[in-house]
Amino acid sequence: MSGELPVAGEVRGKMVEGAALLLAKQGLQATSFSEVLKATGAPRGSIYHHFPEGKDQLVDAALDLVAARMLDGLAQQAGRSAEEVTAYVIGAWRFVLERSGFAAGCAVLAVTVAADSPELLQRAAAIFRAWRERLTGLYVRAGFDEARAARFAAAVIAATEGAVVMCRAERSLEPLELVGETLLEQARRT
Amino acid sequence: MSGELPVAGEVRGKMVEGAALLLAKQGLQATSFSEVLKATGAPRGSIYHHFPEGKDQLVDAALDLVAARMLDGLAQQAGRSAEEVTAYVIGAWRFVLERSGFAAGCAVLAVTVAADSPELLQRAAAIFRAWRERLTGLYVRAGFDEARAARFAAAVIAATEGAVVMCRAERSLEPLELVGETLLEQARRT
Repeated sequence: MSGELPVAGEVRGKMVEGAALLLAKQGLQATSFSEVLKATGAPRGSIYHHFPEGKDQLVDAALDLVAARMLDGLAQQAGRSAEEVTAYVIGAWRFVLERSGFAAGCAVLAVTVAADSPELLQRAAAIFRAWRERLTGLYVRAGFDEARAARFAAAVIAATEGAVVMCRAERSLEPLELVGETLLEQARRT
Repeated sequence: MSGELPVAGEVRGKMVEGAALLLAKQGLQATSFSEVLKATGAPRGSIYHHFPEGKDQLVDAALDLVAARMLDGLAQQAGRSAEEVTAYVIGAWRFVLERSGFAAGCAVLAVTVAADSPELLQRAAAIFRAWRERLTGLYVRAGFDEARAARFAAAVIAATEGAVVMCRAERSLEPLELVGETLLEQARRT
């Protein structure tokens, strides 16, 4: 048993990372076990070992990873100004687009628009809500009143999600840059 | 020949409508010829008759339909205030969500996140750009300077696109309402 667990954990981690990237690049239907094995080099047996409940279990784990990354990033913005917090969200999406050559976007959005089970949709909803709540908290701490913070948090998440899709289609950062300017201007208005 | 053409056109139209709705509800991969036939009751032969180039030709036609609907709706907003124009876009998406019980969103977004050909991606990009340009023109006419109109048009399209995805996941209009308030507030600021 000793020695086996870390390797097993590594294979599982690679598969979850691979699934998250496939979701972000090609959407839910294209994120099959066979594509994940191909992308990660994981042995076929790892499917049944790590994800005995099937594909949704892998997708769930990939969504958990994506959700936690944004939440961790936002946690580090505590105490910053509304403008700095907003710039962080815009920058995080710019990084995803640039690093992938406009091939990747948001895995949570990709799952929502092609979800074939209520459970996956609920998982996506819980993530969008968690991001909104975390961001609302940051804007309240930065001096916004509660109602304005909730409105602006929803606007920042919605506008960056939409802009990322437009950037992927246009293969250009322009939509995100235009949207970013508008959001930063609003963030500065206190 | 007489009498046949209108029926053929009707079948084609139904298939295109059906494909547009499937794209909006279930995404690109789920929009197969067989699903479109099932949804519309069109005879199998209509595939080869109307779409000899294959599925992408049907998806293209569905995107054309969706693109034209938004452009036609925007054309009717000429001469209105920035607030009225913005309220129109928000209302159009609210209608899609309400009529479908949160099942449908934007077909162009759905194609972008699962596009498996550069041609489909380019088609989606052209539509997003056309919407942005039309909306920019309306805001210029409503009194915004060119740069601000371009920024705000991008923000309105991105934010409503993103909000619609969040509404579908959460099965609630709340994200669109919050985002809508923020956009309307900005539109009023002249």
